[in-house]
Amino acid sequence: MHILNIIVLFLVYSLTVSGDSLIDKAKRSGLIPIPNSADELLKMIDPDKMLTPERIELGKMLYFDPRLSKSSKISCNWCHNLALGGVDGVSKSIGDHWNGNPNHLNSPTVYNAVFFKRQFWDGRAKSLEEQIKGPLLAPFEMASTEKLLVDRIESIPEYVKLFREAYGDGMKIDLKSIALTISLFERTLITPSRYDKFLHGDENALSEKEKIGLDTFIDKGCVICHNGVALGGDMQPFELRSKYKHRDVGGFHGNGKRLMKVPTLRNITDTAPYFHNGMIWSLRDAVKEMSNVQVAYKVEFTDEKGGRQIKVNIIPINLTDEDVDNIVAFFHSLEGVKPTIEYPQLPKYRD
Amino acid sequence: MHILNIIVLFLVYSLTVSGDSLIDKAKRSGLIPIPNSADELLKMIDPDKMLTPERIELGKMLYFDPRLSKSSKISCNWCHNLALGGVDGVSKSIGDHWNGNPNHLNSPTVYNAVFFKRQFWDGRAKSLEEQIKGPLLAPFEMASTEKLLVDRIESIPEYVKLFREAYGDGMKIDLKSIALTISLFERTLITPSRYDKFLHGDENALSEKEKIGLDTFIDKGCVICHNGVALGGDMQPFELRSKYKHRDVGGFHGNGKRLMKVPTLRNITDTAPYFHNGMIWSLRDAVKEMSNVQVAYKVEFTDEKGGRQIKVNIIPINLTDEDVDNIVAFFHSLEGVKPTIEYPQLPKYRD
Repeated sequence: MHILNIIVLFLVYSLTVSGDSLIDKAKRSGLIPIPNSADELLKMIDPDKMLTPERIELGKMLYFDPRLSKSSKISCNWCHNLALGGVDGVSKSIGDHWNGNPNHLNSPTVYNAVFFKRQFWDGRAKSLEEQIKGPLLAPFEMASTEKLLVDRIESIPEYVKLFREAYGDGMKIDLKSIALTISLFERTLITPSRYDKFLHGDENALSEKEKIGLDTFIDKGCVICHNGVALGGDMQPFELRSKYKHRDVGGFHGNGKRLMKVPTLRNITDTAPYFHNGMIWSLRDAVKEMSNVQVAYKVEFTDEKGGRQIKVNIIPINLTDEDVDNIVAFFHSLEGVKPTIEYPQLPKYRD
Repeated sequence: MHILNIIVLFLVYSLTVSGDSLIDKAKRSGLIPIPNSADELLKMIDPDKMLTPERIELGKMLYFDPRLSKSSKISCNWCHNLALGGVDGVSKSIGDHWNGNPNHLNSPTVYNAVFFKRQFWDGRAKSLEEQIKGPLLAPFEMASTEKLLVDRIESIPEYVKLFREAYGDGMKIDLKSIALTISLFERTLITPSRYDKFLHGDENALSEKEKIGLDTFIDKGCVICHNGVALGGDMQPFELRSKYKHRDVGGFHGNGKRLMKVPTLRNITDTAPYFHNGMIWSLRDAVKEMSNVQVAYKVEFTDEKGGRQIKVNIIPINLTDEDVDNIVAFFHSLEGVKPTIEYPQLPKYRD
């Protein structure tokens, strides 16, 4: 499957031609802005028409509620802190009884995660709803069980009322409806930025340096993996050129074979430390490391006797210090406006 | 000193006479509403005129910022959760590396803490500002040091800017100014309730049962310790009549001698579990236990040959089930309106 992915990306990438405006070039390279119109955005984040204000509000409450964890101390927000770019800012996530992720994996941001095609570093969940069950139940994260979750929520009369109001009287409070509700709140965690303004046609939305950075980002092939609305969020092979320098720490790696979820670059300036095991603290160093570890591709089409031939050329990325500077400048244009969130008042247990 | 306290309370208590309106009786018993007027309120919470919008906003950011802890995972809000009545809802507070409070002490609420005369269960801090240094530095709570705190904040350019804007260019970022700023935010965490409306003269603000509860609360002597604006917050001796039933668990106790801070009763329905070691989960049970553990006093003045004599009569509290019911009903009238808090966006470390 990943070969197909790469081929599609080749094609997109190879369509980039010089002489284009940078906006056109970016779009032809697979970069997609967050839609300007609410209708278009809703088509993207709510294809199943599940969003309602009641569900979003209830989802927000659950997101911030530490009582969803076995200890009653750990909310979703503890590792995906909406005040800190949707992450916890430490290298590996820490959960129940201070246990760390056994694979030393870093908490990815929840902002714009609705645009990801896959969730988790290994991409094992196809939706936010599916992803949420992971940390709720993992013994080293929130350490709940379905029974515990349902018991807790059913012991809080106001929650029961809000679930019924959100879905109707016959609804069942279970792991599925709890995860769904949290995911509906998460769908709204979208952060439009100056970069989106630019892609929508405002040429002054980016500085000259940021434009050079974007151009370099495309030309050097970063865009082969970091594309779509999220500039990431799909699966790609890792360590195509050489081994990641912190592979001794834990986390799973790639060897050019194993697929890893490409992290979003939106708000990347907020979400240090970097990489799947959170071992690189500087964004400049992270960009350099990607330039060492990965390669870009270029596709050539040649018409020969037997028909059209496709030739894949592997190109080292080789970023200069100036390239890195410019790319990091571009990343600043991806800093988005976070939705305003009123900190909830959570309902209490039955008296 | 505590003898003096008790005497003062005797006097207040003994002034309660029958025939009064319940509002007058409550006020004469030492119960004070949250002022209606902003001026009066400010006199109470800001006698030193330190509050400004900039400082409150910065204080809010620091309150929610887990980077003030050694691990970068624990904010003030982790144990004093503004979504959960200003507490964490577990019996003993949990901090750095999941270490618990060595005395098995329960996190008290931060709401209305500005009205407390003393902070901490043992009353060792006289102000919020002084209290805040405790959890910031305690190895089993946030585990910071002054150097760590200052280094962290000075690595976040936006914080440095906000501190300068709040206090002037010459100000020093140190433990004192950090704690002060958080305390200024905490001064605003005030929750007026139906009970306040009642004390301000709205006789319909309480139900009949709640009024009976308030009357019982006064007559049985609960008000001897639970008085003032916070219905608590000053020091009083504990275990005056018999031993607390969960004294085996940890926490320090009283034996009728040691002073303990009287917890506020505002929002008490939100802040289970109860008692200093958080061992009682039901509010009814907590009220019953207080009725077993403590005593009330009644003072008699007799004019005898040698002059006026004061006689202190110790009275068992002895609450019936109906009394407990009524008192708990009254406690519901103390559920306050929490201030609306926009969840902050925290600034990032230097690039």
